[in-house]
Amino acid sequence: MDFAHDATTEELRHRLLRFMAEFVHPAEPVARAQLATATEPWARPAVLADLKAEARRQGLWNLFLPDPELGAGLTNLQYAPLAEITGHSPHLAPEALNCAAPDTGNMEVLAMFGTPAQRERWLRPLLDGEIRSAFCMTEPDVASSDATNIATRVERDGDHYVVNGRKWWSSGAMSPDCRVFVVMGRTDPHAERHRQQSMVIVPRDTPGVRVERGMHVFGYTDAAHGGHAEIVFEDVRVPADHLIAGEGEGFAIAQARLGPGRIHHCMRLVGIAERALELMCRRVAQRVAFGKPLAAQGVVREWIAESRVRIEQARLLVLKTAWLMDTAGNRGAHTEIQAIKIATPLMAEWVLDKAIQAHGAAGVSQDFPLAELWAQARTLRLADGPDEVHRTSLAKRELRRHQ
Amino acid sequence: MDFAHDATTEELRHRLLRFMAEFVHPAEPVARAQLATATEPWARPAVLADLKAEARRQGLWNLFLPDPELGAGLTNLQYAPLAEITGHSPHLAPEALNCAAPDTGNMEVLAMFGTPAQRERWLRPLLDGEIRSAFCMTEPDVASSDATNIATRVERDGDHYVVNGRKWWSSGAMSPDCRVFVVMGRTDPHAERHRQQSMVIVPRDTPGVRVERGMHVFGYTDAAHGGHAEIVFEDVRVPADHLIAGEGEGFAIAQARLGPGRIHHCMRLVGIAERALELMCRRVAQRVAFGKPLAAQGVVREWIAESRVRIEQARLLVLKTAWLMDTAGNRGAHTEIQAIKIATPLMAEWVLDKAIQAHGAAGVSQDFPLAELWAQARTLRLADGPDEVHRTSLAKRELRRHQ
Amino acid sequence: MDFAHDATTEELRHRLLRFMAEFVHPAEPVARAQLATATEPWARPAVLADLKAEARRQGLWNLFLPDPELGAGLTNLQYAPLAEITGHSPHLAPEALNCAAPDTGNMEVLAMFGTPAQRERWLRPLLDGEIRSAFCMTEPDVASSDATNIATRVERDGDHYVVNGRKWWSSGAMSPDCRVFVVMGRTDPHAERHRQQSMVIVPRDTPGVRVERGMHVFGYTDAAHGGHAEIVFEDVRVPADHLIAGEGEGFAIAQARLGPGRIHHCMRLVGIAERALELMCRRVAQRVAFGKPLAAQGVVREWIAESRVRIEQARLLVLKTAWLMDTAGNRGAHTEIQAIKIATPLMAEWVLDKAIQAHGAAGVSQDFPLAELWAQARTLRLADGPDEVHRTSLAKRELRRHQ
Amino acid sequence: MDFAHDATTEELRHRLLRFMAEFVHPAEPVARAQLATATEPWARPAVLADLKAEARRQGLWNLFLPDPELGAGLTNLQYAPLAEITGHSPHLAPEALNCAAPDTGNMEVLAMFGTPAQRERWLRPLLDGEIRSAFCMTEPDVASSDATNIATRVERDGDHYVVNGRKWWSSGAMSPDCRVFVVMGRTDPHAERHRQQSMVIVPRDTPGVRVERGMHVFGYTDAAHGGHAEIVFEDVRVPADHLIAGEGEGFAIAQARLGPGRIHHCMRLVGIAERALELMCRRVAQRVAFGKPLAAQGVVREWIAESRVRIEQARLLVLKTAWLMDTAGNRGAHTEIQAIKIATPLMAEWVLDKAIQAHGAAGVSQDFPLAELWAQARTLRLADGPDEVHRTSLAKRELRRHQ
Repeated sequence: MDFAHDATTEELRHRLLRFMAEFVHPAEPVARAQLATATEPWARPAVLADLKAEARRQGLWNLFLPDPELGAGLTNLQYAPLAEITGHSPHLAPEALNCAAPDTGNMEVLAMFGTPAQRERWLRPLLDGEIRSAFCMTEPDVASSDATNIATRVERDGDHYVVNGRKWWSSGAMSPDCRVFVVMGRTDPHAERHRQQSMVIVPRDTPGVRVERGMHVFGYTDAAHGGHAEIVFEDVRVPADHLIAGEGEGFAIAQARLGPGRIHHCMRLVGIAERALELMCRRVAQRVAFGKPLAAQGVVREWIAESRVRIEQARLLVLKTAWLMDTAGNRGAHTEIQAIKIATPLMAEWVLDKAIQAHGAAGVSQDFPLAELWAQARTLRLADGPDEVHRTSLAKRELRRHQ
Repeated sequence: MDFAHDATTEELRHRLLRFMAEFVHPAEPVARAQLATATEPWARPAVLADLKAEARRQGLWNLFLPDPELGAGLTNLQYAPLAEITGHSPHLAPEALNCAAPDTGNMEVLAMFGTPAQRERWLRPLLDGEIRSAFCMTEPDVASSDATNIATRVERDGDHYVVNGRKWWSSGAMSPDCRVFVVMGRTDPHAERHRQQSMVIVPRDTPGVRVERGMHVFGYTDAAHGGHAEIVFEDVRVPADHLIAGEGEGFAIAQARLGPGRIHHCMRLVGIAERALELMCRRVAQRVAFGKPLAAQGVVREWIAESRVRIEQARLLVLKTAWLMDTAGNRGAHTEIQAIKIATPLMAEWVLDKAIQAHGAAGVSQDFPLAELWAQARTLRLADGPDEVHRTSLAKRELRRHQ
Repeated sequence: MDFAHDATTEELRHRLLRFMAEFVHPAEPVARAQLATATEPWARPAVLADLKAEARRQGLWNLFLPDPELGAGLTNLQYAPLAEITGHSPHLAPEALNCAAPDTGNMEVLAMFGTPAQRERWLRPLLDGEIRSAFCMTEPDVASSDATNIATRVERDGDHYVVNGRKWWSSGAMSPDCRVFVVMGRTDPHAERHRQQSMVIVPRDTPGVRVERGMHVFGYTDAAHGGHAEIVFEDVRVPADHLIAGEGEGFAIAQARLGPGRIHHCMRLVGIAERALELMCRRVAQRVAFGKPLAAQGVVREWIAESRVRIEQARLLVLKTAWLMDTAGNRGAHTEIQAIKIATPLMAEWVLDKAIQAHGAAGVSQDFPLAELWAQARTLRLADGPDEVHRTSLAKRELRRHQ
Repeated sequence: MDFAHDATTEELRHRLLRFMAEFVHPAEPVARAQLATATEPWARPAVLADLKAEARRQGLWNLFLPDPELGAGLTNLQYAPLAEITGHSPHLAPEALNCAAPDTGNMEVLAMFGTPAQRERWLRPLLDGEIRSAFCMTEPDVASSDATNIATRVERDGDHYVVNGRKWWSSGAMSPDCRVFVVMGRTDPHAERHRQQSMVIVPRDTPGVRVERGMHVFGYTDAAHGGHAEIVFEDVRVPADHLIAGEGEGFAIAQARLGPGRIHHCMRLVGIAERALELMCRRVAQRVAFGKPLAAQGVVREWIAESRVRIEQARLLVLKTAWLMDTAGNRGAHTEIQAIKIATPLMAEWVLDKAIQAHGAAGVSQDFPLAELWAQARTLRLADGPDEVHRTSLAKRELRRHQ
């Protein structure tokens, strides 16, 4: 259980921190200004293209991908402190490094399960940051935390699959750069419970695909992540070779996809919480009320101390989980992945709430990133399964240990 | 300490409940559709005009105003259960009844302190629901929870006052119907600490007034409340008779204004929490995961029970406060007003958070009112002074009792 | 919903407050000294006899009993502020007034359901404070929160009932003055689920009764309440006329008994919390650390303010419940009784925890009543059914409202 | 930051786990029986002598002491998992291994600062487990969390020091085996704030020493730790060579002593929490209410999952702190030591509270160790400085980072 940064990590960390200081943080006001004058509501700020080019030039590209042929070939433990740093500027840095959800998960799926043709057509441009993608799993009409509830049909018809159903919270799908969807649906309703689902690639421009609207998250469109679309699939036909892996593999692929996805979110959340704590400390040092700076208020100090204590604990648990995924596999780290999925969003939400309170009304406004990041952390208590589902599952495993 | 509804209250409650059922709730989808196709971002939905006309026709108008000549002449205790009911549809009902903040506070100020001319020119159209108003107190550059920090200058120059300064979170000021601002500024920086401030009426179209932008609240513009504007006052000249009461009275007027304002917010929050609990109960009864309705999950039941327990306690504290304001005056109810200001937003925030979680991703979206109402409740932990300021003040009074 | 004190209550309150000031609070150090030198571990301090005589003389006797022939004939709402005051000295005052659990519940049962002979033999000396009693329901071998689990047998044999079983947490049974047990057992295991149990009077000196030990509560024996005994009943024969009401009535009697019992606990807990807040305020005003009194620390002030806010809410909910029991009966107040059972111990526990923390190490010690009162409040989250059972039941009723 | 067990640790862990299984856990009921029939209230159970002999024979002795000449020579990181294991039986295991507070701290002080004569006379028998010792710092009359408040005088008089003052919470001093006190007092009230205090060795049988009473902790005497004594020092004369290090070194020695003391407590608390979680899991698997085992209740599962998540985080933070103390020294680990001091007792308290609740009334009783361990965890939120002092200090350091 060695969490120290090895030489590779240390070198990348320094490079990334310099990149953040020289390029990303200065780009933040630029991006804000570009978005303020944008005419296309879902467009990304032009400065992102520059950041992507620069990051790629500097070798800070596809760091998330463990496959050394296709990506940086880092372990989870090596990637963790880097992903955390991208959390300091979560609306620019992950995408600048081509490490943004949901593309990362889709790239991993294609890297692991894609045919050579699938990889050539979709993985390549994703790795190059030329297109974006969406993952279509959650459905409006059923409690999707129970994956067996999923109702979208994917039916074989000759040498095609025909997709029918309604998805929502398909993250990334509102982006004008999004070209392809990975869709989970039911191929065989009569199979064993976890073998009914399959995953299929659906190019966005396939007839019958209708992107209906972007879902809001506490008033935000989350355009930085390409939004979260509601999509109708009506007799959408794709060639049979668009199936990923095999029929009935959908649930297993989703599981394989979710482990890394969850830890990436948590790594970034630790960075987000650090950013919030920094903003809180800076604000309270400057702001004066009732004759002394807010930093001299006991209650504010309690928030700061408690934030530090909670961040440290969450980071260590994330690092342990990364190390365990590297050494025992995603399945061996199941409990820990659930543990960080429960603990980290709550931690970040708490720190952000206190940082907001320390900022007064400014904290809930567009002048600071705190409220939007809070909404993101809050939503992660639901995304990829609500806390309650993870707690139940974790508890069952704990109970089994003592029987 | 009698909280029972008297005959007047009971009759009004029944009338209001019927009005909600027959007019307000059916207008909710209409308003949503009208807003979705609106071209003016700050316009209110057309259906509101109908609701206002109908409410006035039914005598459900200006219920908040204790002055029987001008308003309904209800006590706080009589108004409380009515305001709570408007919380069931907080984006339509309060305005439909001409009981929406910040106009209510401004009307009370003018009713109590206005000259006949001020009342004729501004109070009359406000009482008639023809115009709206804003209250300009908070400033971006200072911690405004300490009112003595306020820096905007209001200087006498001949028979005018000249206003210079920058305000933000001026609620209501983005509304196209907003015609007048009540502005708090410093007339005498050398006076005793609580006698430096004055309040002055500034017609919105006075030269030098520049409404710069609407502040966001967790991504929402809060257009339903006329937004929250940042406003620059640059050499804004108003006739000397636009002063409210006298020079140095600003702080006292603000205090007089805040007591009722705070309890009105809390009354509505109780209604909002009831609405959230109802939505939660309905959702979990229908939604099935892992083979049983969510309503059968122990954790969900705990949320529901705890919500009921918290709502009941907050409501009783609000009623006691209303009763105390009626019998001992706002000053005699100081501790209780602070107590509900601390307790009620936290309660509503908690209930809303659980209701959101019970709705899954739908809970944070635009398909349910929960996320927006959460943002509102959260913001009320800052508006009119952050919780921490109220707790400090309340604790000092408690400590004095034991010395 | 009128919570005001009527003339009777007001007069009794003043009399009781004077009695507390003149007799009870001065007796506290006396009792402590007597207990410190006592040889019999379960004996009550001698000063209690004086307090009882004085209370009776002053007409502050059996205030809990609504029956005007036998007790004070007060409503729950009238009794509530009086019971709260006894919470200021919870180890002396309730017993001094002959208003201590579990005797109050047993007296109510006998008053409501006892035969003339039962009342003459047992209720009379209990009303006179000459003997004490215990209530034997909970069993060590089953989860007794589910009353249908109760396994003790009460079998008819000729003109006797024979009791066999093991009870624990039989409060009051360790007291040397305890002469009689009210025992709940199963008379008919084949009857309908809530008709299997009966209640029977068992004189303590009946052969076969074996009081084995007193249960501890966080290190305390709770001798002030007569302890909590583990008792074995082995072929204990009592005449058939010792049955209370009829066979199969046990569950209904227990329910009738628990409503008032729960609210009495909650009333006293409000008083206990007030005492804790007072102790906290006094302590922090005197104690100096790092150059200023603890009362100047922001965090301490937050505790004080929050304590006040929580106490007020809990008290109002208790008063509403009392009023509802008076006007709608125990059954009509079912939800509220559960609500206060959930909310009040948690509130008191929280306030006591903060008061302890404000006292430093002294807070957990025998020099202040805080730690022992904390243990009592904590235990009330389990006694008469754990919070979780009440929350589940309350939630089910709430869910039904929306179906 | 490598937390893996090295070979030494791994070997010791296995040996210790076997020792626990073969000797300590079987001794628990024996000790309980011996204590139940003991006549001397402060005597330790006879079985402890056997455990000590066996532990020493097995080389499981003085594991806490980093000095390889005198103790096991382990690093903090090596000791951490061993100390955690002793937390599984906290009333026997630490003492059995001669690793119990407060002796460990006193041995460390003597090992680091003692003269050869002091070490020969006091350290040797402590290392051999022949005598026990107490640490006398806290005083009843001042807020001792601010060490500069300490009022006990230690005055030079010829070749003696004369001690006058009153201490309490002198842990260990009630034990009949306690032979020596390490006393902190003020030698020079005019010196610089942190140079006024000195530490002096006071043999327990010195004339003028009066052990007045044992302090209680939530009703427990904490006899397992030798209790917590209130002690009066009245003109207590000790030879000048009984001073530790030099005059004015008292504060520095106390600081040196507290770092390891705090982490040892936290290590054991992690083990205590693990034990509580295990007890909870076992109980809920067996106990049936309302037709199903408690383990099937959603709320109980939430407790179990949340316990696991919190324990993991606390353990990792303790390990990081241990590693940092080993690599950066106690001063370099200042923030982390405070962080674990804040986080770990709260975590253990939370887990124990849930385990208690899951046990029903049995949980608060003497039949399970949960309530007593809870009292211990709760008290550690005060011992060695209340949480609030640590939070303030930690926050100040955090704020400095951003200035």
